[in-house]
Amino acid sequence: MGSIDANNGAYTASPVAPFKSLDPEDFRKQAHRMVDFIADYYKNIENYPVLSQVEPGYLRSKLPETAPYLPESFENILNDIQKDIIPGMTHWLSPNFFAYFPATVSSAAFLGEMLCTGFNSVGFNWLASPAATELEMVVMDWLANMLKLPESFMFSGTGGGVLQGTTSEAILCTLIAARDRVLGEIGVENVGKLVVYGSDQTHSFFIKTCKLAGIFPCNIRIIPTTAEANFSMCPSALRKQIEADVADELVPLFLCATVGTTSTTAIDPVSLLAEVANEFNVWIHVDAAYAGSACICPEFRQYLDGVERVDSLSLSPHKWFLCFLDCCCLWVRKPDLMVRALSTNPEYLKNKRSELDNVVDFKDWQIGTGRRFRALRLWLIMRSYGIANLQSHIRSDVQMAKMFEGFVKSDPRFEIVVPRAFSLLCFRLNPLGGNNAICLELLNKKLLELINSTGRVYMTHTKVGGVYMLRFAVGATFTEDRHVYAAWELIKECTNALLKENH
Amino acid sequence: MGSIDANNGAYTASPVAPFKSLDPEDFRKQAHRMVDFIADYYKNIENYPVLSQVEPGYLRSKLPETAPYLPESFENILNDIQKDIIPGMTHWLSPNFFAYFPATVSSAAFLGEMLCTGFNSVGFNWLASPAATELEMVVMDWLANMLKLPESFMFSGTGGGVLQGTTSEAILCTLIAARDRVLGEIGVENVGKLVVYGSDQTHSFFIKTCKLAGIFPCNIRIIPTTAEANFSMCPSALRKQIEADVADELVPLFLCATVGTTSTTAIDPVSLLAEVANEFNVWIHVDAAYAGSACICPEFRQYLDGVERVDSLSLSPHKWFLCFLDCCCLWVRKPDLMVRALSTNPEYLKNKRSELDNVVDFKDWQIGTGRRFRALRLWLIMRSYGIANLQSHIRSDVQMAKMFEGFVKSDPRFEIVVPRAFSLLCFRLNPLGGNNAICLELLNKKLLELINSTGRVYMTHTKVGGVYMLRFAVGATFTEDRHVYAAWELIKECTNALLKENH
Repeated sequence: MGSIDANNGAYTASPVAPFKSLDPEDFRKQAHRMVDFIADYYKNIENYPVLSQVEPGYLRSKLPETAPYLPESFENILNDIQKDIIPGMTHWLSPNFFAYFPATVSSAAFLGEMLCTGFNSVGFNWLASPAATELEMVVMDWLANMLKLPESFMFSGTGGGVLQGTTSEAILCTLIAARDRVLGEIGVENVGKLVVYGSDQTHSFFIKTCKLAGIFPCNIRIIPTTAEANFSMCPSALRKQIEADVADELVPLFLCATVGTTSTTAIDPVSLLAEVANEFNVWIHVDAAYAGSACICPEFRQYLDGVERVDSLSLSPHKWFLCFLDCCCLWVRKPDLMVRALSTNPEYLKNKRSELDNVVDFKDWQIGTGRRFRALRLWLIMRSYGIANLQSHIRSDVQMAKMFEGFVKSDPRFEIVVPRAFSLLCFRLNPLGGNNAICLELLNKKLLELINSTGRVYMTHTKVGGVYMLRFAVGATFTEDRHVYAAWELIKECTNALLKENH
Repeated sequence: MGSIDANNGAYTASPVAPFKSLDPEDFRKQAHRMVDFIADYYKNIENYPVLSQVEPGYLRSKLPETAPYLPESFENILNDIQKDIIPGMTHWLSPNFFAYFPATVSSAAFLGEMLCTGFNSVGFNWLASPAATELEMVVMDWLANMLKLPESFMFSGTGGGVLQGTTSEAILCTLIAARDRVLGEIGVENVGKLVVYGSDQTHSFFIKTCKLAGIFPCNIRIIPTTAEANFSMCPSALRKQIEADVADELVPLFLCATVGTTSTTAIDPVSLLAEVANEFNVWIHVDAAYAGSACICPEFRQYLDGVERVDSLSLSPHKWFLCFLDCCCLWVRKPDLMVRALSTNPEYLKNKRSELDNVVDFKDWQIGTGRRFRALRLWLIMRSYGIANLQSHIRSDVQMAKMFEGFVKSDPRFEIVVPRAFSLLCFRLNPLGGNNAICLELLNKKLLELINSTGRVYMTHTKVGGVYMLRFAVGATFTEDRHVYAAWELIKECTNALLKENH
């Protein structure tokens, strides 16, 4: 901030003193205070209801209608956070959070994020932040190595990786690369011929992303899955669909396979699907948002078998790699195709490095222009913990899920609906071993509501193959055996109450 | 993290002790250490070369090829940041950074970001984080009030606002909303008829975003601007183009007007352009990424005149509202259109609140699903500083730019190429008052290289209307009068050296 020019009447009339938005010593004091606030929040997090119990509109009535004209004190604001914000939080970091997929965190990632914020570098091209670009290249190769990806996905080989915010963005970028490659051959006027493929278990953003990219809604193919195949995509069903589309003179473009679907962590058979897709020159993307992190352990790596035949792969470290939001790793085999589709070259960003040295300008690997120094988080995670601890972290979560699986198996009123693959268990209450889907759905809905209304745990549901089921996703960072055990006790307690009431 | 099951051979064989990725007390200690690291960085930031002086590939040779198997100490990592990362940074927060547009910051926003990271809530829908959704609604209304936007853009009125990462994402969302509204009427097979409009000064992401959304490249109209009109878009040229397109049976869809273009902060006449666009039912978006923040001051608000006639407006607080990356505010007059185009409704996210209470689920206002609690940053900024200080912040930057303008005017070897509107000055060296564009470009390129190679300031260039010019963008958070003065001294010094050498 500049000093205020005393000769200018407009400024001397200002009701506030000369303003510094960041004085290093004030910053230091307040940031220390915030560290303690957050550390205390973590210490007490178990005491808050996991699922917020507020009613819609609760906050508007508490806050003024307009921003204040004059400053307010930091202590007042902190008090309001405690009083007004925290009760409205659904505490994703609570050890009793078993909903959706956990969003895992770590001290190392927090420190990396502080540093990323602190530098506030805007790494749209190499020159604007060489360290940001180069560290991102290094960590993407490191993680690719941990996952035993082929050289064709690494900068040290012939490909490369980039950090995105969300899987949606990652898939949009690859889809556009695939689309523009084909449209370059058949002409943009044939966009209505392009066909994309997912299964009924592919994440909901897939259809949304395809529509964003201008794929005709009638050309989005959803291959049905079955319980018999554990809700994985069937390669022969894919082949049939592609052959039918080719027969209709359509152009198969893009396949999204999933390793660890959102509902049940189903695993599409990458290798077999790639065999089909390769034959028809279809771009194949593997979405391993959640389960990809597990593949750093040898015992899970098999689920990526065939990855050497795919075109791109994404994985979200904010899900199961201790990373905080938001961070999605995307590796591509042919970065040139993506850069060709996404590059811009305005005069005001032109520079010798980009023109002569052939450096990586990550703005051409993403939707937007500006970008943060996200690589710091991953670098700090990998260095602070090492591969050994990161594997141990995955195994420990899986172990807790196994423990929970044992509990469920031990109670004949429950059944496991889908075999457990990672740290999510899908089960339902079925006390009489019945088959009436409607009754069982109602019963399990009631049970879930009862459990969540206690605020003691938070779980969610899904419905797959017509079956309504409860999801118990283990892995929130603070979760220990005792929380899993207590959750199971609560589930039984609520079940007893519910079954008694129904009699 | 769970405890390790001693009965399982695989785990007892682990070379590391049971692993906790976030112990609150370790977290506290390390985060305090990082606060000091960052505060010290800010204290010393003036001592670093603004523009990094490293060569491409500098980092790879310094770092190991793979992640470590065992943990490394925090102190070692901090040392490496100082030793390996900082020399590769282009220091965006340096008071001597006058390149691009500054990315402004503040203590309040840093604290808000810490809290956002700390909570790590994933606010895809209301239920998943009520406070995150509701606070975002409140701060978007607060900021809309400060900008004197009409009620039709506020939740307290009939519209609403949402936080996005970048302007590209904001424009993509509105473009899709506009596109799908029209395609709903004319059929998706007519996508090749849709035409979009920008000027030759519209940000480069506009063309990229339109291509992403499947607009045919041949239907992206770039209205030429002129120096006489200060590079603003000409409403009558727009009208002519639209009329020609209508005559060709094309469908005018979307206009991107800019308040404060990236090259020269040119200001498109929103009101006059909206008059044309409204007549043809064209969606008009105003991109005020940089200059929008200035419109909280009455003396700049005029540049938003006519906003009551547009469909959407975006502004990036990470540019000039002290916010750190990444944060872009998007207001829309008809959220329903956006929600219709962007909503998803997978079973695993279904909940009573979304179904019965008609709450806002922000996942339907953006590209991705997951989202961070970004509103905290804006809330802390507005409360910690108040409108008075935020206005003073804008005025102080403009005042410094005026001071620099005075310096340039005082030296007959220089000329101002575009009249200054905000805190950016576009000027060039033209010692003989010549007209030879090629010679002058070479001369100014050399001058810029000379200036930047000192590491003492960082400036960038642009080329508009065939004229190569230097950009001096004032407003980095630590910049004071003395830095602007020193920069001018350096520019004169380099100019003297250059002109001497050329003689």
